[in-house]
Amino acid sequence: MARSAEALRPALRAALAEAMTSNGPSDAAHDLAHADRVWVNAQIIAKGEGLSRSDHLVAACYLHDLVTLPKNAPERHRASHLSAQAATPILAGLEFALDEIHAICHAIEAHSFSADLPCDTLLAKVVQDADRIESLGAIGLARCFAVSGALGRPLFHSSDPFGTSRPLDDTKFAVDHFALKLLKLPAQMQTATGRTLALSRADVLRRFLHDLAEELGQPAPIW
Amino acid sequence: MARSAEALRPALRAALAEAMTSNGPSDAAHDLAHADRVWVNAQIIAKGEGLSRSDHLVAACYLHDLVTLPKNAPERHRASHLSAQAATPILAGLEFALDEIHAICHAIEAHSFSADLPCDTLLAKVVQDADRIESLGAIGLARCFAVSGALGRPLFHSSDPFGTSRPLDDTKFAVDHFALKLLKLPAQMQTATGRTLALSRADVLRRFLHDLAEELGQPAPIW
Repeated sequence: MARSAEALRPALRAALAEAMTSNGPSDAAHDLAHADRVWVNAQIIAKGEGLSRSDHLVAACYLHDLVTLPKNAPERHRASHLSAQAATPILAGLEFALDEIHAICHAIEAHSFSADLPCDTLLAKVVQDADRIESLGAIGLARCFAVSGALGRPLFHSSDPFGTSRPLDDTKFAVDHFALKLLKLPAQMQTATGRTLALSRADVLRRFLHDLAEELGQPAPIW
Repeated sequence: MARSAEALRPALRAALAEAMTSNGPSDAAHDLAHADRVWVNAQIIAKGEGLSRSDHLVAACYLHDLVTLPKNAPERHRASHLSAQAATPILAGLEFALDEIHAICHAIEAHSFSADLPCDTLLAKVVQDADRIESLGAIGLARCFAVSGALGRPLFHSSDPFGTSRPLDDTKFAVDHFALKLLKLPAQMQTATGRTLALSRADVLRRFLHDLAEELGQPAPIW
């Protein structure tokens, strides 16, 4: 029987907070507030797409990043699998049935870019879209540069910031990540509601690139 | 006798690059490209203000951050003094006369916020303004979040992102830095040309805050 998402949320949030504490300091892009915002995004998308089981949705949203690994960790593609594994006893403790745990864990596992798994359910699609929205807009902008700073990467290539005559490489330059990943997200959204939201947030990134180009005395990129 | 800034620039840039290499890895906000951009800003401001000695200006721009210390280092207020000290033998090697070295070193020492020294000359004012422009606009936005990420600080307070009912604290939250420092910069500019440039770049930050507020479902801050 479906339970109220708001009744489940405090326990899920507490479980995530505990995992973050025991895993050591979290990065600026994956704090509790990220999970809160993914849950907000997910409710908007779920409403637009007619997804009814908000108890499953709130669980997948709060537990999707239960295990995080740094962007440059070789095992990073396994983080969402490890999150699903770590979520299982938490979900069992919250009295989710086995088939429910299976459904929620699929959404957790499939949310990640690096896992490269297909989303088999609407639940998984909504969670993936809700999480990806976080990479766009003003929040995405701030997260992209915070992650880059934490990894000690330069903001952009000094003489060719938009890669007009060099191969783009987002392991080297934060701004290259806009072309290689962020601005491709709207086309990769799994739901129509997610895509609409993503397109408007991608505009925030494009405006930033336009301002940056002007400040650098460069033509704006055609990304 | 004044020499051409373009003739001096390669040696100054090389001296800065060498200092960066021997001081260990630089942060994303203080790389060679930062010095290049300060030099570009400084030329615009110098032109508007009628500053003629571009040889002094190029030297102060490239050597202003010869010694950098992390934002949270207790000795940080001494970094610009240490930069001026380190600049002295480099300037002597480039055959600047003693009074020229003195003038350039004053501009280097006075450029810094944390040093809290008055700018006694137009040269010092132009360098300070040119450097502060870098904290604003799209570049300033990217640098602010990169520095925050490197220090492991959250992007913003999760429930009260704009500090409407808590004291602002930019040692804790990146977005608080907008109110406590960045958006105050236009009023603190030393030259009219610097102020005009700063005002237009502060608008980029305000637009970002507006977008962020919308994404977080919060009223935009009145900063």
